Amino acid sequence: MRIDLITAVPELLDSPLNTSILKRAQNKGHVEFNVHNLRDYAHDKHRLIDDKPFGGKAGMVLKPEPFFECIRKLQNEVHYDAIIYPSPRGKIFSQQDANRLSMVNNILFVIGHYKGIDERVYEKFRGEEFSIGNFVLTGGELPALLMADAIVRVIPGVLNDSESALSDSFQDGEIIGAPCYTRPAVYEDMKVPEVLLSGNHQAVQEWKLEQSRILTNNWKKINNLE
Amino acid sequence: MRIDLITAVPELLDSPLNTSILKRAQNKGHVEFNVHNLRDYAHDKHRLIDDKPFGGKAGMVLKPEPFFECIRKLQNEVHYDAIIYPSPRGKIFSQQDANRLSMVNNILFVIGHYKGIDERVYEKFRGEEFSIGNFVLTGGELPALLMADAIVRVIPGVLNDSESALSDSFQDGEIIGAPCYTRPAVYEDMKVPEVLLSGNHQAVQEWKLEQSRILTNNWKKINNLE
Repeated sequence: MRIDLITAVPELLDSPLNTSILKRAQNKGHVEFNVHNLRDYAHDKHRLIDDKPFGGKAGMVLKPEPFFECIRKLQNEVHYDAIIYPSPRGKIFSQQDANRLSMVNNILFVIGHYKGIDERVYEKFRGEEFSIGNFVLTGGELPALLMADAIVRVIPGVLNDSESALSDSFQDGEIIGAPCYTRPAVYEDMKVPEVLLSGNHQAVQEWKLEQSRILTNNWKKINNLE
Repeated sequence: MRIDLITAVPELLDSPLNTSILKRAQNKGHVEFNVHNLRDYAHDKHRLIDDKPFGGKAGMVLKPEPFFECIRKLQNEVHYDAIIYPSPRGKIFSQQDANRLSMVNNILFVIGHYKGIDERVYEKFRGEEFSIGNFVLTGGELPALLMADAIVRVIPGVLNDSESALSDSFQDGEIIGAPCYTRPAVYEDMKVPEVLLSGNHQAVQEWKLEQSRILTNNWKKINNLE
């Protein structure tokens, strides 16, 4: 998979793209990231990428020209299966979106910062707008990284068998996973639940399922999702 | 404000904590970030921080001891107003949470990676668990950065007046902001809506409100929030 990201603050992406699973996925050849600096596509003397909004006072808006030039240049080289805009007004990103997008070849993230992107960019280059929740961020960079992580980690081969993405929360009918414990079995008088030490596979599975049900119901309740 | 973050992959946080608003907020003295490497609190020969889960096959679980030691050490130095665990089973993080947390002095993020944290850590050091959506990530680092960004940017003084966080989407009754446009007024035959060029302040405000209503209703519809 190839993932391109257009951003006004490319340096923000440096360490997350080169750590943990995203680094490993690149090293194994499963994904290639290309970060494009919006400022490289601004040609006036000061290389301005933003300007004041029409009809408004607060915030700066990213100008259309650098996006038009950068996206067109990329589209001449690559056919994108998905163009993704991190955006508060979009569909809330879900595991189903991550699973679907993990199967495509080329993804372009068009990332806003400050107050947003000139609306004509969305109109010209139609894509999918995804929100990661109802709160305000300085830019779409962190949401783009989140989506990239969620997408890349389910590409077959990225995780080892021992890490099995399929046993994660949300993969199996939006079920929250059971609490997990590791050694020592007793630590400062806090004991791992007996059943997990029992060696009784069926009892363990039943306990996990029951814990998952409890946590999932609780999750739905606190988030008003019932 | 002081924000401490305990993580197994401290290098992931490098560039986001030192870019854009988070960098500026530190430079202005509004926030101080302290990143703690979980591995510094593992004392066996291999400095192991994870181990296999009891009663399970897939994934590795972060051991309790390094967290206990690190959190206790920090709690001896700092009184935390909030201990936050990024966690899929938590309350979905919202702008209201960001606003509330922007008013406290000290926040500790306890961040899991891989399959999760030994449950006894949550039991011993009670905190708030926050989810940023129903999808699976490799770790809580990106969610912690998202929350830190959302919290820090609403600390009074972090944004300039001209950036006014209060006119953002979600701040005003969960309303999505109107589309924004900047110069040029006509670009490749694509025109900025006439009203925004009219200089008629009242008409501009009415247009923005109407656009916000349309986008907010659309957002609720596509996310089944009606």
